[in-house]
Amino acid sequence: MNAKQVTGSTNFQAPVRVGVLGFGGLGQAAARVLSLKQEMILVAAADKQGYAYAGDGLNAQECIAAYQSQGSVGYLEPTGTLTNFSIQDLIESPHHVDGYFLALPNLPNNFIASVAQQFIESGWRGVLVDAIKRTSAVEQLLGMKEELQAAGITYMTGCGATPGLLTAAAALAAQSYTEIHRVEITFGVGIANWEAYRATIREDIAHMPGFTVETARAMTDAQVEALLDKTHGVLTLENMEHADDVMLELAGIVDRDRVTVGGVVDTRNPKKPLSTNVKITGRTFEGKISTHTFTLGDETSMAANVCGPAFGYLKAGQQLHQRGMYGIFTAAEIMPQFVR
Amino acid sequence: MNAKQVTGSTNFQAPVRVGVLGFGGLGQAAARVLSLKQEMILVAAADKQGYAYAGDGLNAQECIAAYQSQGSVGYLEPTGTLTNFSIQDLIESPHHVDGYFLALPNLPNNFIASVAQQFIESGWRGVLVDAIKRTSAVEQLLGMKEELQAAGITYMTGCGATPGLLTAAAALAAQSYTEIHRVEITFGVGIANWEAYRATIREDIAHMPGFTVETARAMTDAQVEALLDKTHGVLTLENMEHADDVMLELAGIVDRDRVTVGGVVDTRNPKKPLSTNVKITGRTFEGKISTHTFTLGDETSMAANVCGPAFGYLKAGQQLHQRGMYGIFTAAEIMPQFVR
Repeated sequence: MNAKQVTGSTNFQAPVRVGVLGFGGLGQAAARVLSLKQEMILVAAADKQGYAYAGDGLNAQECIAAYQSQGSVGYLEPTGTLTNFSIQDLIESPHHVDGYFLALPNLPNNFIASVAQQFIESGWRGVLVDAIKRTSAVEQLLGMKEELQAAGITYMTGCGATPGLLTAAAALAAQSYTEIHRVEITFGVGIANWEAYRATIREDIAHMPGFTVETARAMTDAQVEALLDKTHGVLTLENMEHADDVMLELAGIVDRDRVTVGGVVDTRNPKKPLSTNVKITGRTFEGKISTHTFTLGDETSMAANVCGPAFGYLKAGQQLHQRGMYGIFTAAEIMPQFVR
Repeated sequence: MNAKQVTGSTNFQAPVRVGVLGFGGLGQAAARVLSLKQEMILVAAADKQGYAYAGDGLNAQECIAAYQSQGSVGYLEPTGTLTNFSIQDLIESPHHVDGYFLALPNLPNNFIASVAQQFIESGWRGVLVDAIKRTSAVEQLLGMKEELQAAGITYMTGCGATPGLLTAAAALAAQSYTEIHRVEITFGVGIANWEAYRATIREDIAHMPGFTVETARAMTDAQVEALLDKTHGVLTLENMEHADDVMLELAGIVDRDRVTVGGVVDTRNPKKPLSTNVKITGRTFEGKISTHTFTLGDETSMAANVCGPAFGYLKAGQQLHQRGMYGIFTAAEIMPQFVR
């Protein structure tokens, strides 16, 4: 007996029409991930200078080519539109989009919240997903719960890798315990050559003691090189501001100060210095202290671990939306659904 | 800013009133797990010879003492009732119970399905949770979806350790991948002395090639000892019939024949021969083959890993029920909620 016979579920469902806002590395990866799916299709994409829409689906490769060679998906013919108000214009267009992945850099720290506000004010109804990282940023979205509810929007926040996949794994692992003592997320990143990741390296340096986003951004390449030379090219990041903490606290699992996120970035080796993992330590009902560990395969890239879950949470959000469940949900509360 | 202030959620919610059906090792562990919680209280317990009910909560230790010394919770004064139709009588009693954990041995293979049928016919509405193991047994429950829906029951099936916690971990891990190649669950069990687990050892032997439930049950202790001697007391179980397969297939994640469950039981050593884990192997959108691994801490017992998730899924089921979402759900589709 196969599963379809058991449940009697043979309904055809039209593919979910998805838009991607932001078309840097993350947005482009999202477009590629969607190109391999049948249940979900990319119908819209927007960058700073324009947007593109095609009701029967955009071609990810064409979008990426237009962006990389001409600077915007707005140059696509005939699906593109050049505009400096791309997000606003796309939201307000008559084109139907079921859900958007906000693959945007959250700079300044309230940028994504301001985009959510645009959606609320537009009257658009549907599902929104972000892969926001910082605690303070997710808290802004959480504070918009009632407005999102009233607007008929189902917003899924912190749905990348961390926060996201690893936060959900912690929420699951917590089930074995009466009390959680700590949640420790550690990521490993290996890059052959840091110059290809200039912006990201400075974001990482911003998390180090003694640095801020501004001072890290202001560093010259020579200053970055000198910093890296002190540590054989390895950056060790500890106690990063990461929304896994507020999400697990909100889920009633553990106080936020018992959640730590850190990582090791090796800027001179494409191989990860350690395998990305989350450890959940707690006490069982029998009084035993123990640790569950969820480890990600080394061959899985950050893009796969962010975009995969983002669309899985978009699908879950779609199911919530169909049931009239609006407002805001985090990755720790909901099981992402597999998107074929 | 703490999480409650962010969401404005300060409502007091009455504890969820829970019943445990079956009071062997699993039911007793369930009672102990509940005794440490505030959000959920044990109000009812039933075994073969009787049941007990107390609206303001039963004392787990007293229930366990009555069962172990007198043979039934029905002997408790004044909360117990002796009856050979304990489940029927408890369901039909006017006592209010929000949800039941069916901590019953599924013998014969349709026993738990028959108990679900009793609930359906009684007119009782609420949440039911099981920790059923076999594929064929979960399929029976899945086949009752429409009747459960019509009866106003929210049934959570396969919500133990495996299936359960490990199946949900696989569903989560699958999010990084475009295609899942295989899911491998391997459990490790260490027991100092197999004679304390006579029934369980024979259940395990029943899964070995050349044995059936009947032939294993019929073995004398001497025959069991001789079998164990051949392998230094270690039983290796492979390709067990486990509902993780149908649950992951139903969730659209992977065909059931790519899901394998096995284990190693060391009957002469209290230390686990290996750490219980689930490995999820797949291909990412970038064409990389990789494996995520979720490993349970060795100090966590099967009781903790079964009962913890069971009540987490009961809480999740309660939330579904409050929204009018009846029918049947599996551990792979829903995020269990942490029960304080």
